[in-house]
Amino acid sequence: MRIIGIDPGTVITGIGIIDTSGSGATIVDFDAVTSFKGLKLPDRLKKIYDTCTEKIIKYKPQEFAIETAFYGKNVQSLLKLGQARGVAIIAALNQNIPVSEYSPREIKKSITGNGASTKSTVSSVVKSILSIKTELDTHDISDALAVALCHSFKRSDHLNMLVSEISKVSWSDFILSNPDKIFNRN
Amino acid sequence: MRIIGIDPGTVITGIGIIDTSGSGATIVDFDAVTSFKGLKLPDRLKKIYDTCTEKIIKYKPQEFAIETAFYGKNVQSLLKLGQARGVAIIAALNQNIPVSEYSPREIKKSITGNGASTKSTVSSVVKSILSIKTELDTHDISDALAVALCHSFKRSDHLNMLVSEISKVSWSDFILSNPDKIFNRN
Repeated sequence: MRIIGIDPGTVITGIGIIDTSGSGATIVDFDAVTSFKGLKLPDRLKKIYDTCTEKIIKYKPQEFAIETAFYGKNVQSLLKLGQARGVAIIAALNQNIPVSEYSPREIKKSITGNGASTKSTVSSVVKSILSIKTELDTHDISDALAVALCHSFKRSDHLNMLVSEISKVSWSDFILSNPDKIFNRN
Repeated sequence: MRIIGIDPGTVITGIGIIDTSGSGATIVDFDAVTSFKGLKLPDRLKKIYDTCTEKIIKYKPQEFAIETAFYGKNVQSLLKLGQARGVAIIAALNQNIPVSEYSPREIKKSITGNGASTKSTVSSVVKSILSIKTELDTHDISDALAVALCHSFKRSDHLNMLVSEISKVSWSDFILSNPDKIFNRN
């Protein structure tokens, strides 16, 4: 399963792409869309949309995960953040990829076990899980990889839960509730 | 000049398309993208993106105008509004249409002469300018038409200013500053 994670922002948008399998997760690519100060808002949004679209077309992820907003920011930042989020989500939907959203607390908890971890701790754990030896330029990249990892953990939790639910059902119960599945030899 | 105006929102997004010429403005189409409560955010954003894209492809406006945010709203609304705005702007840019933004105050002032007009007053004036006889379903539609009209007024103000600047330049000044334009008969 290939997952693209996005940490949206109008100044820097982090992008992380990972592959997950039963044995763990590996890094595919990471990048950051950065906007210099003079760039107008529509051009910033277009740059985010185009880069997300390029990465999706190049790496063909099956799922897309994005951070929900952090409400502690000021109103102007929130509006800008909303615009960047909307644009990244549309880039995914325009390539027919399902979108999942996770709160910063949910992401941190799934990566480090603590919903209040610092960005540095998240970055160290992400690098260790994905065996990344180089420095990541910005926390926006580690946050993007973190949301992709969070999505893979949540997916596998969900699958495990389904498997355990299925194993609770005995064959006798199954046959009783699915009489049409019985092949009558006579 | 054909202009599409957008009043963005995740619940209702107003769309208005007008034609402008020296003699005034006429209505081309108006519509509202409405989302029922159960629809998830990515699906709401996709509906806004797809409807804006369809209208742009169908009516081929040359310019796109959108309301900037109203900061009095709560943070959750602002984030959602930001997402809807970002998506509408990307729909325009993906069809190569330049985007202009106007504040609610700027729009009201250009339509009614008063930056603090009520939505009802804006709606009445918009209907009267565009000779719309029917009721508009929601103020989101009149607000979308208002931002399109505001853009046409601002454009023609800008053109008038340019014309008046040009007329200030005398032919003698022009010849002095453009000696290469003189055709020497000898």
